[in-house]
Amino acid sequence: MPAKGAHVDVIAGGGIVGLSIAWRLARSGRPVTVADPAPASGASHAAAGMLAPVSEVTYTEAPLLRLGLAALRRWPSFAAELAVDAGLAGADALDFRTDGTLDVAFGADDLAALDELAAFMEKLELPVERLTGRECRRLEPMLAPAVRGGLLAPGDAWVDPRRVTAALLTALDRLGVPLVRARVSELLRDDGTVTGVRLTPPDVQAPGVADGGVLRAERVILAAGAWSAALAGVPVRPVKGQIMRLRSSQPLLGRCVRGTVHGSSVYLVPRGDGELVVGATQEELGFDTRVTAGGLYELLRDARELVPGVTELEVSDVVAGLRPGTPDNLPVIGPSGTPGLTLATGHHRGGVLLAPLTTVILLGEEGELAALCSPERFRDIS
Amino acid sequence: MPAKGAHVDVIAGGGIVGLSIAWRLARSGRPVTVADPAPASGASHAAAGMLAPVSEVTYTEAPLLRLGLAALRRWPSFAAELAVDAGLAGADALDFRTDGTLDVAFGADDLAALDELAAFMEKLELPVERLTGRECRRLEPMLAPAVRGGLLAPGDAWVDPRRVTAALLTALDRLGVPLVRARVSELLRDDGTVTGVRLTPPDVQAPGVADGGVLRAERVILAAGAWSAALAGVPVRPVKGQIMRLRSSQPLLGRCVRGTVHGSSVYLVPRGDGELVVGATQEELGFDTRVTAGGLYELLRDARELVPGVTELEVSDVVAGLRPGTPDNLPVIGPSGTPGLTLATGHHRGGVLLAPLTTVILLGEEGELAALCSPERFRDIS
Repeated sequence: MPAKGAHVDVIAGGGIVGLSIAWRLARSGRPVTVADPAPASGASHAAAGMLAPVSEVTYTEAPLLRLGLAALRRWPSFAAELAVDAGLAGADALDFRTDGTLDVAFGADDLAALDELAAFMEKLELPVERLTGRECRRLEPMLAPAVRGGLLAPGDAWVDPRRVTAALLTALDRLGVPLVRARVSELLRDDGTVTGVRLTPPDVQAPGVADGGVLRAERVILAAGAWSAALAGVPVRPVKGQIMRLRSSQPLLGRCVRGTVHGSSVYLVPRGDGELVVGATQEELGFDTRVTAGGLYELLRDARELVPGVTELEVSDVVAGLRPGTPDNLPVIGPSGTPGLTLATGHHRGGVLLAPLTTVILLGEEGELAALCSPERFRDIS
Repeated sequence: MPAKGAHVDVIAGGGIVGLSIAWRLARSGRPVTVADPAPASGASHAAAGMLAPVSEVTYTEAPLLRLGLAALRRWPSFAAELAVDAGLAGADALDFRTDGTLDVAFGADDLAALDELAAFMEKLELPVERLTGRECRRLEPMLAPAVRGGLLAPGDAWVDPRRVTAALLTALDRLGVPLVRARVSELLRDDGTVTGVRLTPPDVQAPGVADGGVLRAERVILAAGAWSAALAGVPVRPVKGQIMRLRSSQPLLGRCVRGTVHGSSVYLVPRGDGELVVGATQEELGFDTRVTAGGLYELLRDARELVPGVTELEVSDVVAGLRPGTPDNLPVIGPSGTPGLTLATGHHRGGVLLAPLTTVILLGEEGELAALCSPERFRDIS
């Protein structure tokens, strides 16, 4: 057994995945330290927070659907327990809502695609409802008159990721988990075993950090999102997403609404306080987090097509984040081939949805799902 | 003669007009105080800085054209002298540039309108050049291929209004002009004469301010832009303009470019450091300075039509300001009917262009132009 207070686990990365893991480990009594130069400021900060495995389903990604459904089932208890640990009134304080997602169609081609998707989902015994344009507008009166039909996934949910990471930081603080505000610039290796991390800047002051920014650990859990590739050869690439937050005095929508406009997918996520999140671009541009004229233009154009009334809303925030995409769109979770190194990265567009499930997989439960996410499917990780 | 240091003139409003007047008066040795809760943060902060009387000309506004041309002639010496007083290297430090404006047309109707405008301008002996689409693109290679013709106004200029107001504030500081950071909430009146202002908050600490926020003056110069109506019944209304700043590593354009897209006018103003200003909406919404989804959408849509390459640029700033519009679009400059009250407001879209000329008109030069701007043309000012 490690001495009390030793840095048994060091988690490289303080996004929603890294923080969730730290919280679960610390809760179970395991000493853990999180290292991140700016926790909760990357992809988690940009995320809209859709927990929508059903409406996100595509024909080719059955494993991702299975993961997503299992993850969604974990969310209610995760949110409730986190609220308790963070001293919040309840999951409502995280804006955790379960009112479903409405996927809408405009043209005849869109409608045909929606019909096919509905048939596919019914075959999978997913609870969906095919709606006419009129039924869609009855549910969501602000929808454009041009909407001709929709598919309601009543089980889909959403949450405010910024509130979740804020709650995780509070919970970690209450549990006494050290949060080192420095970047993990290198994994320390000793005879083929990962034995800790090197931090930048090297003179960072934090418990357990030795000269040169060295922080020893029995296990390093790499949860550095798109930055994981450089540290351990994980095949993740940055997929840029630009997102916009609009503000209105009262909510324009009662549930998440998504649709395909001009061939690009757009979604609108309503918050309880009247905020409306519009997302998101998907751009392969490397480590580029600039908010661009073209990105904003696409979001605004597509959001207007779905819900014309958005034009009156105030623009309160615009931000870009980098999702960690993998070759097969599945995350990379579990022990790597290298002793001392465990991975929890590659969550791509699903970091918020999959965070609770990721902690469970790491704790060794959910063996069958763990196999889907196993690092063993990739070479070159070390 | 007033005692040295007395607050002979109090200027209500520290936008580009109020600050320019203060600078000219202080330079001539006259004691002056400026009151503004947040100098240089209103319409001047949102302005793009086009000094483009020729390309802004319309058939019905000959007086405004005369004013604008006279104002443009004042700019080179104004910029040069301001640079000296602010300790800058020269007018270049204000991004004062004289490379002209290019007005472009897309469709056949646009081209016909451009031809008519060219004929009208030639009749006025304004120096303009009618260009083909090819000639436009030779001047500005980033222009959209759909541009079919243009009108070059080679004498038009532009400047960075934020640098100008910053230089004015520096110059005023060097001249020892007091800047009271409070709002003028009321004009003090004594037997039909304006004798000073009341400031809010009333406990503001500044030289010459007595109990209750009272600041006495021989003359109050009202330069409060859209807020002038409430103080003295000037018929100005707020005309909202949303504007966007884009950033690129190298300038996309060599001169100001404007055009009419989907019936709305858009212009692009390049700065020396690669910034590109895109403006501007014109909205009649009262005192509303929210940046809206619809406003940004229009700017982005129209800018893309003119110069498709803007989509790659970073969005560095988005802001809305309130222009002080008058019923005849001409400013209101000169002594009011009320002793002790002088007006310098109602500059609408021309505050930056007209600021130097405004100071000259107030000093009693340019009598003929002064008549165009006289407050006497409106009743109810007092």
